[in-house]
Amino acid sequence: MSAPPPRPTHQRLADTFAKLSEPNADVWVASTGPGGAHLVPLSLAWIDERVVIALPSDSVTGRNIAASGKARLAVGPTRDVVMIDAELDGAHPVDEAPGPIADGYAAQSDWDPRGQVGYSYLVLRPLRVQAWREANEISGRTLMRDGVWTSASEPV
Amino acid sequence: MSAPPPRPTHQRLADTFAKLSEPNADVWVASTGPGGAHLVPLSLAWIDERVVIALPSDSVTGRNIAASGKARLAVGPTRDVVMIDAELDGAHPVDEAPGPIADGYAAQSDWDPRGQVGYSYLVLRPLRVQAWREANEISGRTLMRDGVWTSASEPV
Repeated sequence: MSAPPPRPTHQRLADTFAKLSEPNADVWVASTGPGGAHLVPLSLAWIDERVVIALPSDSVTGRNIAASGKARLAVGPTRDVVMIDAELDGAHPVDEAPGPIADGYAAQSDWDPRGQVGYSYLVLRPLRVQAWREANEISGRTLMRDGVWTSASEPV
Repeated sequence: MSAPPPRPTHQRLADTFAKLSEPNADVWVASTGPGGAHLVPLSLAWIDERVVIALPSDSVTGRNIAASGKARLAVGPTRDVVMIDAELDGAHPVDEAPGPIADGYAAQSDWDPRGQVGYSYLVLRPLRVQAWREANEISGRTLMRDGVWTSASEPV
């Protein structure tokens, strides 16, 4: 079975925003620390061009991202992926978070972490975003570089 | 909507082997190196209780695993996951690999890397395996620890 033709950039951008904004969206979060590479699935909210996750501050992922300031994220199934290299842009204990973050997270996610002792929101700013389905979409996969979205008309 | 009741250990084991053996199965591979955490989706084959992947030896993931000897793997969607902490058990340039690895990989995967210049198979041995769907399956999620499968009758 051959793959469908590669999507143009504007379609990949539209599909990427749809994935990030989907209700109950999940994200694979890869981080690194003293124990090596770590990877967990978490709920996400897409708020003001940031990926927001909520987790125990003292979890492996929480400690890794706090220390390194970085994470690599994947959204979508393995053959329709959005890959995001992100930097830590803010961390807020859930009961002290700005309203737009806490309300936005609860609105998109299927749970509301407010009231969970020891939980924080981590706000992750994308620096590079890539989207591809099959091998024929590897070319043109970069939708953001150095924190700037590529124009839909620009070759990537 | 409430989650279905948690699966007993024997069912999680059966589901895990089914996922690992599925034709065209994919795996999220997290690794770490000088650039921090890396994460990519790859095809997998489950051969002789090992996860086998094929990739360019000089890719970020290839170099990270060669240097660290470790990877963290995820199979399945975010709400039906198998998480595997694995160590590198062998690396073979695709055209010099033992027959069972090359043939087994081609049989399960939807591609055959033999003939691809610079590609290697990495053979990853699971040390810890966990499987869960929703929060109510966090308890009892560990199916293998220190390289040994838990007995289906043993509390985990």
